[in-house]
Amino acid sequence: MSVSDSLPPITSAEILAVGTELLMGHTVNTNASYLARQLALLGIPSYRQVVVGDNPERLRAQILDSARRSDLLLLSGGLGPTADDITMKVAAEAAGRTLVFDETSYEAILDYFAKTKRSMCLINRKQAMLPEGCVILPNTNGTAPGASFTLETNDGQGQIHICTLILLPGPPSELVPMFELSVQPMLATRTPYQLRSAFVRLIGIGESAAEDKIQDLIDNQTNPTIAPYAAEGECMFRITERIDKEEQDLISPVLEIFRERFGKHIYEVGTRTLPEVVVDLLKARGATVSFAESCTAGMISASLGDIPGVSDVFMGSVVSYDNRIKENVLGVWNETLESHGAVSPQCALEMAAGVRARLGTDYAVSVTGIAGPGGGSEEKPVGLVYIAICDASGITVEEFHFAGNRARIRRNAMLSALDLLRMRLL
Amino acid sequence: MSVSDSLPPITSAEILAVGTELLMGHTVNTNASYLARQLALLGIPSYRQVVVGDNPERLRAQILDSARRSDLLLLSGGLGPTADDITMKVAAEAAGRTLVFDETSYEAILDYFAKTKRSMCLINRKQAMLPEGCVILPNTNGTAPGASFTLETNDGQGQIHICTLILLPGPPSELVPMFELSVQPMLATRTPYQLRSAFVRLIGIGESAAEDKIQDLIDNQTNPTIAPYAAEGECMFRITERIDKEEQDLISPVLEIFRERFGKHIYEVGTRTLPEVVVDLLKARGATVSFAESCTAGMISASLGDIPGVSDVFMGSVVSYDNRIKENVLGVWNETLESHGAVSPQCALEMAAGVRARLGTDYAVSVTGIAGPGGGSEEKPVGLVYIAICDASGITVEEFHFAGNRARIRRNAMLSALDLLRMRLL
Repeated sequence: MSVSDSLPPITSAEILAVGTELLMGHTVNTNASYLARQLALLGIPSYRQVVVGDNPERLRAQILDSARRSDLLLLSGGLGPTADDITMKVAAEAAGRTLVFDETSYEAILDYFAKTKRSMCLINRKQAMLPEGCVILPNTNGTAPGASFTLETNDGQGQIHICTLILLPGPPSELVPMFELSVQPMLATRTPYQLRSAFVRLIGIGESAAEDKIQDLIDNQTNPTIAPYAAEGECMFRITERIDKEEQDLISPVLEIFRERFGKHIYEVGTRTLPEVVVDLLKARGATVSFAESCTAGMISASLGDIPGVSDVFMGSVVSYDNRIKENVLGVWNETLESHGAVSPQCALEMAAGVRARLGTDYAVSVTGIAGPGGGSEEKPVGLVYIAICDASGITVEEFHFAGNRARIRRNAMLSALDLLRMRLL
Repeated sequence: MSVSDSLPPITSAEILAVGTELLMGHTVNTNASYLARQLALLGIPSYRQVVVGDNPERLRAQILDSARRSDLLLLSGGLGPTADDITMKVAAEAAGRTLVFDETSYEAILDYFAKTKRSMCLINRKQAMLPEGCVILPNTNGTAPGASFTLETNDGQGQIHICTLILLPGPPSELVPMFELSVQPMLATRTPYQLRSAFVRLIGIGESAAEDKIQDLIDNQTNPTIAPYAAEGECMFRITERIDKEEQDLISPVLEIFRERFGKHIYEVGTRTLPEVVVDLLKARGATVSFAESCTAGMISASLGDIPGVSDVFMGSVVSYDNRIKENVLGVWNETLESHGAVSPQCALEMAAGVRARLGTDYAVSVTGIAGPGGGSEEKPVGLVYIAICDASGITVEEFHFAGNRARIRRNAMLSALDLLRMRLL
């Protein structure tokens, strides 16, 4: 009998990661975000993520706490062979189950060692000790099997609450396949509905201003729900619909309103980044691009270089940090530098025209600015950036004022340069 | 009076991140690992990390739970201007404090908007509403100020426990500077002992090979402790000593052994990154550098551009993605490209010599390779990279074979290029 046969739908979940390396900050808890995304896809509301160390008392208390509140508790980590690895033992005890030796799991462990040509330690036998009556989750990529079993708590007034515990190994390379192979199908039979999300990505508008524009939608949301996301210099909204039974599309009408209100600020509905969107636009037009980068110093070029196959449209760039490079390679006039300075609309225009001519591309974008912390003046403060764009139809320049530290100013300059190019390509 | 004046040492801490985007798995909780590392450096034991969503009841219950157990609770997220952002309000209520309008913080917010030339929304005013009697933590990189204040809980038997709450903004670009500027100094006055760490940074050696070389030190560690850190393409060890009372130096003898065993693979004992070390070496020699980047596409240049004041030594670069740029701007011979290809030692040599001549620098480094996933062949597989370095004394080229995906190959190429330059400068 599988755990799910007799159990009601899961309406609440928590995620508990076990490991002192997480508490010390040596490891980032990517398992929690992976499991959280999987729960969201299954339509299981997830209310809490917790990390505790390899300490039996705190782990036991946390398991009981979480089990009282939730129908499902996903645990990761602490299934290894060493004395530090206590999750299976502590969880079994909390559920009032004894650990019993499982021959099949033991053979699987022996098999894994034979396959990887390593010799097994005696301590690995511990990994075949599993809670009585549990569903065993095979590990296709390591030694420690996972386990699923129920834990009953009593609220003191005779009310019994049943929580399903699912114990998974800590290494993502073992946890992910185990979840996909064994856990996802098990949970899918116990979810009342599914969730479907669309991501709307905006550029050139701040988070607060963007939210103002759709405050009415956010205030009145039920299904689909609308939630803002702030990323560095960018802004994103998630629209999520709950699908109860048959095929629905509640997202499209909301997307329509977004398009009306944000217009060209929406650069993507989906998963593409801004550099990817720009490269796709260039490919669609069969056009090439080059950059003349001063304060961004190669960031824009490197962001395109991340994308496989970008060589169809991206020809190259000149990073002109020093004024002599601006003069000698890009052909900026010495007089321009002398009378207006390197951070000036005139210099940006000549840089863009220069790199386009020198590298022979259809489009060219230049960036020159003061990233700080030094180098600013009253007239030209830190954060002042000029971005020029040049194509066969002409050349224009825009002035920007970015706040924040050096990294943020450079990142915003990069995003704005890509956005100007996107606007020109639309 | 500052919060720390009258308060006892901190012997236990928890970290609480607030945000539905974390619960949905759309954001990885890097704030928790950052804060955990900082607590470890301060010698403050950290027992739990929790994530809850933007839900007032659950947040309030979690704050009270954590405050009962701990001397310190670090919160991140939910300080934004929107209706979702409830952390300040809920934490103040839990501590029995009312929110009061803070003129100074409001002016800082106005100032931030003025500097970024954006118009402020009325909802930003909310961010100047702070708990009475709190220590305000200025935000140097965004609008939301942080706050520190105490929360008293009663165990029901007349015992009062005081927990210090510190509320920080969610974006790492705001949280990290705020922690460094305001929180770290505040906490340092309340730790019973201090930890002092030295970070040994290595390049050109893998993590397993490095660990093998000092396995005896790791096995026998007590004080100082030795822990490995693996980062993408780099390898780092932390040596940490616990200083109880007087001045000690347990680290230097261990460092001596590291130097004997790793030699030139150690590029830094301290906090400098590889680009920073290279820039300092260039400055010490009064020498200038330029780069010719193909598969790295500007990454090396951008990594130098991160460093304030780099313009003394970094003149500029040519990103020569397309072969025509290699020919027309760098002066690579057409015959070289025709007979050896762009990914060849010959091309790398001509790129380095070309960019050095064109940009007139003392040193020049070139990178050309196949980052994949496409473009590989049996003769020239994905991961093959040539790096050449040129100065007045001559020009050399090295062949590398990197494993992993496109991002990893490009990153390793970048680090190796910088390391070759470092070796030449030593």
